Amino acid sequence: MASLQEIGVAAAINLISAFAFLVAFAFLRLQPFNDRVYFPKWYLKGIRSSPKGSGPLVRKFVNLDYKTYIRFLNWMPAALKMPEPELIDHAGLDATVFIRIYLLGLKLFVPLLFLSFTVLVPVNWTGGTLEKSKDLNFSDIDKLSISNIPQGSKRYWTHVAMAYVYTFWTFYVLYKEYKIVTTMRLSFLAAESRRPDQFTVLVRNVPPDPDESVSEHVEHFFCVNHPDHYLLHRVVYNANHLADLVAKKKKMQNWLTYYQNKCERNFGKKQVIKTGFWGLGGAKADAIEYYTAEIDRLSKQEAAERERIISDPNAIVPAAFVSFKTRWAAAVCAQTQQSSNPTIWLTQWAPEPCDVFWKNLAIPYVELTIRKLLMAVAMFFLTFFFMIPIAFVQSLANLKQIEKYLPFLKPLIEVNTVKGLIQGFLPGIALKIFLILLPTILMTMSKIEGLTSLSSLERRSAAKYHLFILVNVFLGSILTGSALQQLQTFINRPPSELPEIIGKAVPMKATFFITYIMVDGWAGIAAEVLRLVPLVIFHLKNTFLVKTEKDREEAMDAGCLAFATSEPRIQLYFLLGLVYSLTTPILIPFIIVFFAFAYMVFRHQIINVYDQKYESGASFWPDVHKRLLIGLVISHLLLMGLLSTNEFKKASPILIALPVLTVWFHLFCKGRFESAFVKFPLEDAMVKDTLERATEPNLNLRNYLQEAYVHPVFKGGEFERPPAIYEEENNPLVPTKRNSHRSSKHESDVDASSDAGF
Amino acid sequence: MASLQEIGVAAAINLISAFAFLVAFAFLRLQPFNDRVYFPKWYLKGIRSSPKGSGPLVRKFVNLDYKTYIRFLNWMPAALKMPEPELIDHAGLDATVFIRIYLLGLKLFVPLLFLSFTVLVPVNWTGGTLEKSKDLNFSDIDKLSISNIPQGSKRYWTHVAMAYVYTFWTFYVLYKEYKIVTTMRLSFLAAESRRPDQFTVLVRNVPPDPDESVSEHVEHFFCVNHPDHYLLHRVVYNANHLADLVAKKKKMQNWLTYYQNKCERNFGKKQVIKTGFWGLGGAKADAIEYYTAEIDRLSKQEAAERERIISDPNAIVPAAFVSFKTRWAAAVCAQTQQSSNPTIWLTQWAPEPCDVFWKNLAIPYVELTIRKLLMAVAMFFLTFFFMIPIAFVQSLANLKQIEKYLPFLKPLIEVNTVKGLIQGFLPGIALKIFLILLPTILMTMSKIEGLTSLSSLERRSAAKYHLFILVNVFLGSILTGSALQQLQTFINRPPSELPEIIGKAVPMKATFFITYIMVDGWAGIAAEVLRLVPLVIFHLKNTFLVKTEKDREEAMDAGCLAFATSEPRIQLYFLLGLVYSLTTPILIPFIIVFFAFAYMVFRHQIINVYDQKYESGASFWPDVHKRLLIGLVISHLLLMGLLSTNEFKKASPILIALPVLTVWFHLFCKGRFESAFVKFPLEDAMVKDTLERATEPNLNLRNYLQEAYVHPVFKGGEFERPPAIYEEENNPLVPTKRNSHRSSKHESDVDASSDAGF
Repeated sequence: MASLQEIGVAAAINLISAFAFLVAFAFLRLQPFNDRVYFPKWYLKGIRSSPKGSGPLVRKFVNLDYKTYIRFLNWMPAALKMPEPELIDHAGLDATVFIRIYLLGLKLFVPLLFLSFTVLVPVNWTGGTLEKSKDLNFSDIDKLSISNIPQGSKRYWTHVAMAYVYTFWTFYVLYKEYKIVTTMRLSFLAAESRRPDQFTVLVRNVPPDPDESVSEHVEHFFCVNHPDHYLLHRVVYNANHLADLVAKKKKMQNWLTYYQNKCERNFGKKQVIKTGFWGLGGAKADAIEYYTAEIDRLSKQEAAERERIISDPNAIVPAAFVSFKTRWAAAVCAQTQQSSNPTIWLTQWAPEPCDVFWKNLAIPYVELTIRKLLMAVAMFFLTFFFMIPIAFVQSLANLKQIEKYLPFLKPLIEVNTVKGLIQGFLPGIALKIFLILLPTILMTMSKIEGLTSLSSLERRSAAKYHLFILVNVFLGSILTGSALQQLQTFINRPPSELPEIIGKAVPMKATFFITYIMVDGWAGIAAEVLRLVPLVIFHLKNTFLVKTEKDREEAMDAGCLAFATSEPRIQLYFLLGLVYSLTTPILIPFIIVFFAFAYMVFRHQIINVYDQKYESGASFWPDVHKRLLIGLVISHLLLMGLLSTNEFKKASPILIALPVLTVWFHLFCKGRFESAFVKFPLEDAMVKDTLERATEPNLNLRNYLQEAYVHPVFKGGEFERPPAIYEEENNPLVPTKRNSHRSSKHESDVDASSDAGF
Repeated sequence: MASLQEIGVAAAINLISAFAFLVAFAFLRLQPFNDRVYFPKWYLKGIRSSPKGSGPLVRKFVNLDYKTYIRFLNWMPAALKMPEPELIDHAGLDATVFIRIYLLGLKLFVPLLFLSFTVLVPVNWTGGTLEKSKDLNFSDIDKLSISNIPQGSKRYWTHVAMAYVYTFWTFYVLYKEYKIVTTMRLSFLAAESRRPDQFTVLVRNVPPDPDESVSEHVEHFFCVNHPDHYLLHRVVYNANHLADLVAKKKKMQNWLTYYQNKCERNFGKKQVIKTGFWGLGGAKADAIEYYTAEIDRLSKQEAAERERIISDPNAIVPAAFVSFKTRWAAAVCAQTQQSSNPTIWLTQWAPEPCDVFWKNLAIPYVELTIRKLLMAVAMFFLTFFFMIPIAFVQSLANLKQIEKYLPFLKPLIEVNTVKGLIQGFLPGIALKIFLILLPTILMTMSKIEGLTSLSSLERRSAAKYHLFILVNVFLGSILTGSALQQLQTFINRPPSELPEIIGKAVPMKATFFITYIMVDGWAGIAAEVLRLVPLVIFHLKNTFLVKTEKDREEAMDAGCLAFATSEPRIQLYFLLGLVYSLTTPILIPFIIVFFAFAYMVFRHQIINVYDQKYESGASFWPDVHKRLLIGLVISHLLLMGLLSTNEFKKASPILIALPVLTVWFHLFCKGRFESAFVKFPLEDAMVKDTLERATEPNLNLRNYLQEAYVHPVFKGGEFERPPAIYEEENNPLVPTKRNSHRSSKHESDVDASSDAGF
């Protein structure tokens, strides 16, 4: 266990590195040639464009105005300035609600911090066990924690009572937040203008019919079963191969541009490349000729494939987007069962056109079930056998162990700064490396499971990631670390004693988690704002590929909030906060700093940087709520384990009520709010329909919906997300404009796709 | 542990008692004056009527035809004769599917028996542990069980392999059965003729409106949101007080009839009664005058109450039955969410008119949630604190304990027959008494929870009862019994060792469960067929109350299949079978006898006796399926516990896959079949609508539906279930008639209620 001094060193290191990141950010973001890295959202919205000033050339690349450097932390208050309704208009509801999670962390833990330090810390401090037993190695932090209270002491009643107080406070905060988010979602949906997905239902598992094609079968089925409401449908082509071709061609085009640019700069000198594997072997050829030929070849293949898909009935998968005359009818069709066999004619709300994950629309039901089983098994193995490498790395983080097994390092480790450094960085970074590898695997697994929209894929991956973090980061860190500390005794115990062992280990691991919060949380957030990777990539692209303004637009990588990875990580902080608020309250301030810092940074990012791929209307909130409650239940169980190892078993019957109450609270909230996130009420649909009929009696809905759900490769190679036409804005950072035109995006979407020439 | 001889004695006793019940039944049922007790269903269907022969008077009461007595077991083949489609027509789908549960038991366990006796029993028998250790008290049964295998032996691999075989066999049987039942339900629903509930949706939690009454508010809401489909609605009156008055008046009427009859028999002698509490105190009065006056008073009160309910707007509860023009529209409304607030305008399929539980329609949403929490807590306490009395009774059932603490009983107990008697009866009966008390409590709890139909109340109670049986009968019996046997060691162990302790105790409790099966199963079923309680009550009523043929009709108590109590009990047998098929296969034959006997008896009962109160179309099957799988998972966990106590922990990773697979199988079946039991597909609704429009274009649906959902007290005091008009039948026991008129019930229902004069 580390002493207060050691934690101080680690905190200082982390604070300094975070500060360094911030200074670097402040400097880099003021340079005009980085503008597209740090303010891409404004470019995408069409409010900013590349500097075309009449000043000297250098002004285009370097900011020479020294005044701006003085106010280099100005972005922080600026980020907090934009009011929430405007933020929803500007960044979308998903992003706005996402940063509310950080705010929720503050709302939850600031009062808990206050309570812990006025009630629990004095009780713990005066417990006085650790001072008596001289043989134990303890530090000041332990004296603040529950470990300082003697076994079976009546002082534990304080913790039991506080467990109740904390739980009810959590309920209150969560209930209020769920209510607010629900209201936000409903008013967001109500304010939304006409969108194709409001009228459309995704139908999957169309049963094969010997006499009819899929298209005819769908049309007949819906004409019969929704006679007054059916408008049109669009079958789904299996264009996976075509999409591959298009992607390949685009890559070739990039290389062609690269060599053309190079050629121009070298005054027409020929560029020779090797055409073999990865450019390492094979015959030499002129680069421009080679790529032009390749692109030509691919274009022909692509055209042939296009032809084949449109003419071949086997290229049509048994799925379709069915559009209705009214939102009411679409809501009805999405919420009802069509056939007595629940595995065919499956209907669900169509995702937004840009949210559709096209590859998975083609999977038949039986295959889907098998895939799900396989992925569940794979997830099980991934979760439980990933622990072995982590255990090894964790064991390194224990200084005592290192000194024992690598005694020659002892003199180095004994230096206080080095000691702090190792304890501050090593365990956190080891975990971090594992975690970086993971999201891609999990997303691939979710894709195999066959979900049909990007938003649901992200939610699914987040659930997997959460499980993984829970088992491997949280339980894994607690258990393996203790296992090495307790060595002999641990191996001989049956796994059924897990809760008690964990309960015992929890307060001992407080220091580890404090350093983890600093490395993963503080420094991680500071790195997020700096955007090093997009910065480098943008400048590389800008140097080698960009010829026109449009190219530069494409070279810009705005990125987006990665719900699948960020949310489960936040949940870990919530879990740590809930668990340690009762046992080692000293951890809470570190979490509060994390939440406050993250809230500010991400608010800045969603305003200036991120460009969300889709808008799901905060449909992830039920998951966030549920996982927070899972964390709460875990904190209850650990407290029970801890108290029973400390011979205070009489509190268990009183504590058991807490998880029961939590489960009930979950069900209550689910009943009260969840349907707002999964269903679309008929009343609201009817209101919108009626309003529309009154305001636009001559609307040609058929034309409007005809081309909405066309596979993106048939639209010209990729999702078209053209900039909407906005009025010019003067304030470049956090402009305030009430009447943003988020809603006009889709009309322009249609225009753009016709521009694209397909 | 009992020896084979002791079990033999117990089995003989139980078989003799069961046989005695059967002989008594065979004798009683042939007497014409018991006809209405043993064949009430045929009376209710109008096929049988009271004997009006021209023969001697005695023939009306006693059967003198000696030939019929010789073939006294004839009812058994007769019960099996009726083919299933006809059984559905005759007894309804609920009853038909219910007895299929017993058949499922046979299908499941007969092959398991075969496998167990060819594979597991030889492996166990030659294990040879018990013969070596002379200090242990063991019997022949133990030699057949898993206890005979030495610790850590490789023989356990056989059990692990068989666990897989058994699990997959169970999957196969369950899947097939779920498929059959689903098909039966769907064709049953498709064949059903027009019924009010097909067009009607129950709307609850109508929000209060300051300007409109509930009725107006409902009408406006549905006119707006289902404009082309809404037909009519009927508000629900809070007639609970009126229903009480009606019930009270009916009771008084019964007493009046009783005294009038008594008076007649005593040639007009006045009957004096005391009018105080329970007829024990108070002033004396003439019985007939007193009851006439009372009835008069109640009639007036009733009339006033009726008046008040109809005129008082506060007597209308915020719920309504809304009927639509088509089944399609009703299906849409029942399956969709109406308002963005999911706690108001709650829609669900209306239950059959005779399935509605009127009292609960009036509960607002918030109260409902609180009630559910309270009932969950109550259920928790009921389940976990009921164990204390059971533990006491169980301890008595252990002969060794009795001899130890009550040594003066020793000579009596040592007599072999007495020993068998005590072991055969005591533990079973003690449990039985507890179980008889329980269903009423559980049903009351379910009613408090606020479910709106009798069928859902029964399903809910069944779930509660299942939990109770699982914890208290199964786990309770295993644990407490063992606790007393292990005395010292047990108290010192933490509760986390539960699985291992249970695993160890399971084979030791085999004898107890064998006797339980005999007493509760065999004798219980035999008692069911005898119908002692209805027999006595019918003859009492017949003697004292019956004046007209109609009175006799009312005195008849056909009873019905009590799903809430029977199904969880069957589940206990499934659980025992699944658990013991792997550890102590000798238990399986007893279970098979139970299932075979029960199948026969209940098939006879549903043909000749039971009159189901409602028809839910086998909607309980998903519950049955789920609970069976819960039993399967428990058997896996116990096997894992057992093997790990026997130092065979290396099998645990292999066995853990079984519960995972089971959960997956549950989800698979849920996705594949469950929606057939909870939703009504639009396609089927549309087919029926179209057919009806073609065959009956001039149907006046408004008239048909107008009076369907009127509170029964407004219809004349109770549910009207008049006999349908059937053709005369010659075979009185198991007649075969393909074209039964189950479907004509409802038309006659309407006729009858107009006959009733309201």
